Amino acid sequence: MRAAVMRNKKIVVADMPEPKPGPGEVIVKTLACGICGSDLHALKFAEKLVEGARRSGGAFVMDLNRDIVMGHEFCAEVVDYGAGTQKRLKPGTRVCAMPVLIKPSGVETVGYSNENPGGYAEYMRLTEMLLLEVPNGLSTERAALTEPMAVGYHAVQKARLDKDDAPLVIGCGPVGLSVIAALKLNGIHPIVAADFSPRRRELALKMGADEVVDPKERSPFESWKQLAAYKDPSKAPPLMPWMKGPALRPAVVFECVGVPGVIDSIMSSTQPNARLVVVGVCMEKDQIEPMSGINKELNIQFVLGYSAEEFATTLSNLAAGRVNGDPLITGKVGVEGVAQAFSDLGSPEKHAKILVEPWHS
Amino acid sequence: MRAAVMRNKKIVVADMPEPKPGPGEVIVKTLACGICGSDLHALKFAEKLVEGARRSGGAFVMDLNRDIVMGHEFCAEVVDYGAGTQKRLKPGTRVCAMPVLIKPSGVETVGYSNENPGGYAEYMRLTEMLLLEVPNGLSTERAALTEPMAVGYHAVQKARLDKDDAPLVIGCGPVGLSVIAALKLNGIHPIVAADFSPRRRELALKMGADEVVDPKERSPFESWKQLAAYKDPSKAPPLMPWMKGPALRPAVVFECVGVPGVIDSIMSSTQPNARLVVVGVCMEKDQIEPMSGINKELNIQFVLGYSAEEFATTLSNLAAGRVNGDPLITGKVGVEGVAQAFSDLGSPEKHAKILVEPWHS
Repeated sequence: MRAAVMRNKKIVVADMPEPKPGPGEVIVKTLACGICGSDLHALKFAEKLVEGARRSGGAFVMDLNRDIVMGHEFCAEVVDYGAGTQKRLKPGTRVCAMPVLIKPSGVETVGYSNENPGGYAEYMRLTEMLLLEVPNGLSTERAALTEPMAVGYHAVQKARLDKDDAPLVIGCGPVGLSVIAALKLNGIHPIVAADFSPRRRELALKMGADEVVDPKERSPFESWKQLAAYKDPSKAPPLMPWMKGPALRPAVVFECVGVPGVIDSIMSSTQPNARLVVVGVCMEKDQIEPMSGINKELNIQFVLGYSAEEFATTLSNLAAGRVNGDPLITGKVGVEGVAQAFSDLGSPEKHAKILVEPWHS
Repeated sequence: MRAAVMRNKKIVVADMPEPKPGPGEVIVKTLACGICGSDLHALKFAEKLVEGARRSGGAFVMDLNRDIVMGHEFCAEVVDYGAGTQKRLKPGTRVCAMPVLIKPSGVETVGYSNENPGGYAEYMRLTEMLLLEVPNGLSTERAALTEPMAVGYHAVQKARLDKDDAPLVIGCGPVGLSVIAALKLNGIHPIVAADFSPRRRELALKMGADEVVDPKERSPFESWKQLAAYKDPSKAPPLMPWMKGPALRPAVVFECVGVPGVIDSIMSSTQPNARLVVVGVCMEKDQIEPMSGINKELNIQFVLGYSAEEFATTLSNLAAGRVNGDPLITGKVGVEGVAQAFSDLGSPEKHAKILVEPWHS
């Protein structure tokens, strides 16, 4: 089959054997698969990613000397079943699934693995029991957004937002946009979002941000302050005794950039008692000043992925129109276009999410 | 009055004017004042501390070109009242207080300030409404432990422990020992604690640790694992799908060291979904690997100080014998002995907490 393959730290087009279904597995035809920022990171920081996963028990264990087909944000079509399957869904049925395989030996990832090709190839091997049928009426493109939209949904769940909390989203790439959509779904306002790119700020507004900020023009934290003041100051919890200023709602800052320095910059700029939710995936070492965290009693919650329930809920939310991810999709390519798409995605003005359609050229 | 003064980054003995009480203020005679690790840090990293406080709104705003009398863990005796006071407590009454002054212009610290001498001097100025009478029968030495014991109490409150949580205390200096006492008070077991120093491990056991570990011999995280397995594995929450291993109770790791590298080392060694409570005060820049946090969805809670209520509760707990801080006290000095005590406290084998008694030589 044709695939866009990570080989020697480059994306190349290659022919490779079609996957065969193991027990409990199904073969699917990839209809559309989004390119994730993590894939760009994985290409750039492959060694670090693998080494870090080995040390901390992460999922990304790969042999970089062998081919890897990435792609974990997919909508696919059932083709064939392996042994021991229930064949619940007819061939031709469109499906989404969390990008993991459940094997007797444990759980493996799809898309960050030498054994399990991801959605940048014509076919994938998936675990039958994880398949979710795409509801009638939901387009393949929209269904392919389930995975990235589930990331934002999960991050907002982990933030355990209270009705008084006032969110600030730093970075409006696909991760930040997905967080904004989940915040909107949650009914928490105002949603303040910051990005250097005018195009990204425009997308943030489309996804549900109430106010967008260009950090070159103005501190996002200052803009947030103006919007996050309690209307009734008597309802405000006390600040640290040595802090001055107006009574502000609790700050919940979503870090959706994933490059070194952003966590520290949020820590030094945000309010006392703020909670940081780190959704951006920084694969490098990073520096922080613990005293910023200590002086303000900050809380940092790192998040990853989503639960099976959150993934299924996100697909339902997309199907019911409760969440609209359309503004995210800014391009489509075939297998041949993946390398160029990886490069194009470096510019926030051009693209947010590019879908790979392996069967199209 | 006689005082041990921070001058040109050294501790020297000096004579200085006695403080005068402002409106709402009281003059107290210092009976005993513990030397805090933060004072050692403050001497070593004075510029960084002040600069960090200026940037992040911390409390430690001082002019390092002028004298500073540190000391914020005190028991004192009421001497004289300023204007506008209620004179609730008779002169001679023993008191504790949070080391802050409430002024019309805002809150100022006692002990990290050019204006408000701390407990390494014969007299201090305090705010009347913050005074807590030391209950009869509680010795001055024990009452002076209210502040450091309140730090551990607050840290454990902020950890929001659930009955299933299994704590691990990294570092058994006064902060770690105070955390251990608060954990014991909370009834959470087993309490696992780690320190390189045999003396500190011995103190940890005296304060209530169930198991102590020498990190040179064995990973504290491995020891913790053995003790933190669920007795009934069916009650265990699910691990990350790609994680293997026995069902373990949620890890709550208290960072009580406060030097660079410790947070990162905990992040890379601890369990998925662990919560870190950073009680140690690292005044330098620090490096972390965000991927460790992300892969394991870690939560980091930085903590500082205590609330007025937690401070008062700690004094009551000491008076009622619910908390015993005696093992902490390993020495006493007069004003002349403070410089040497600062140096002695560098060795964990010699000392945990040294009390300054400014009236003794």
